[in-house]
Amino acid sequence: MSTTSPIPGYAHDDPALAASPVTLDDLAKLQAGVLFGPDDQAALKIAGEVLGGQIEQILDVWYGFVGSHPHLLAYFSTPAGEPIGEYLARVRARFGRWIIDTCTRPYDQRWLAYQHEIALRHTREKKNHTDRADSVPDIPLRYLIAFIYPITATIRPFLAADGHDEDQVEAMFQAWFKAVTLQIALWSQPYAGPAW
Amino acid sequence: MSTTSPIPGYAHDDPALAASPVTLDDLAKLQAGVLFGPDDQAALKIAGEVLGGQIEQILDVWYGFVGSHPHLLAYFSTPAGEPIGEYLARVRARFGRWIIDTCTRPYDQRWLAYQHEIALRHTREKKNHTDRADSVPDIPLRYLIAFIYPITATIRPFLAADGHDEDQVEAMFQAWFKAVTLQIALWSQPYAGPAW
Ligand code: HEM
Ligand code: HEM
Repeated sequence: MSTTSPIPGYAHDDPALAASPVTLDDLAKLQAGVLFGPDDQAALKIAGEVLGGQIEQILDVWYGFVGSHPHLLAYFSTPAGEPIGEYLARVRARFGRWIIDTCTRPYDQRWLAYQHEIALRHTREKKNHTDRADSVPDIPLRYLIAFIYPITATIRPFLAADGHDEDQVEAMFQAWFKAVTLQIALWSQPYAGPAW
Repeated sequence: MSTTSPIPGYAHDDPALAASPVTLDDLAKLQAGVLFGPDDQAALKIAGEVLGGQIEQILDVWYGFVGSHPHLLAYFSTPAGEPIGEYLARVRARFGRWIIDTCTRPYDQRWLAYQHEIALRHTREKKNHTDRADSVPDIPLRYLIAFIYPITATIRPFLAADGHDEDQVEAMFQAWFKAVTLQIALWSQPYAGPAW
């Protein structure tokens, strides 16, 4: 995957992006809650290099998982249940970029702003807007949380594919697990409102 | 830990417990979403035997984690910030029983009903009621989601403590990870309402 060609709808670096309602202090507490520290950041950096050459294969696994579960594929489909090829493809490109971002971006205010944007794109407020997709209006929070499991468990063989030693693979895996859990905690904000 | 002496406030088998708004069909889809199947149930059964003799040590780790993070300990404290010993102790006993329940209970309608009750006990609706605790009114959803990480990562050495071979420990670990993720997905229901 090229990380330089523009990806339609990808807006991490868009200066017009609204700030997140989540503060850097909120983020620091959440990072403490998942035990995320500098060692994890370092491990993710290596993970980014390892995963960077395998993005399409990883997406094949995740899209295969979604595609084999009708109750998940429904969110990439028309209300009548017809999968929307272009929507699937456009989101796939951004999803690939997200793998790299998770590993290499500093978790700062800009990152928080795009985290918030990604969260909203799963909700009634912004789902479908970016790709003008004729799909169902929102994705239930419970499936976002449940998805922590497959997104984490399936990454391990890809982390091991470059021949790093077992301790390094384990460090990358733990850092990935923390980073995914952290992000879903962030993305639950527009779903939970004041109880977030 | 004895699993036969009554635990104050523990209500899994209380016939007066309200039914969960979550249906068995919702549950089946969530289980598919975390890839939870009969093999996991079998692995959890063994895990229940392995963990059953180590409950206090596991709770020491988890309570140590909460106790060392002021922003988490606050939820077991008075609004003025004084930790409430009796509240901590009473919840601890139920938390111990939950470890066993996660491993051994059938995930059926009764289990769903108590899942719903546990969810509510983290929210404004029922937090503090069971123990008549003079504590803060609710626990933010983000910390529940974030807690998936420590509750999962810290369990591995305990699963390995009985000398099962590496494949069996791994199977128990994956099943535990799925079961915890599944439950937090369920517990997010009262937080997210219609967007759940
Ligand atoms: C661990 C949980 C999840 C992660 C990490 C994740 C990640 C992502 C990412 C990175 C994007 C693209 C964001 C962008 O526009 O730059 C995205 C969009 C999307 N995701 Fe998820 N996702 C998760 C859960 C789910 C689930 C359970 C579904 C349901 C099948 C889902 C369906 C979608 C859809 C339909 C979009 C496109 C939204 C739009 O219209 O813009 N996601 N997701
Ligand atoms: C993976 C996430 C979590 C799990 C598995 C979990 C598990 C439990 C269990 C099993 C109980 C006892 C339920 C019963 O009454 O039978 C409980 C209650 C409680 N938990 Fe959690 N918990 C989680 C996250 C948190 C977090 C992040 C906090 C914040 C520090 C927290 C604070 C409490 C408190 C204060 C109670 C007592 C509620 C009451 O007043 O009844 N929990 N939890």
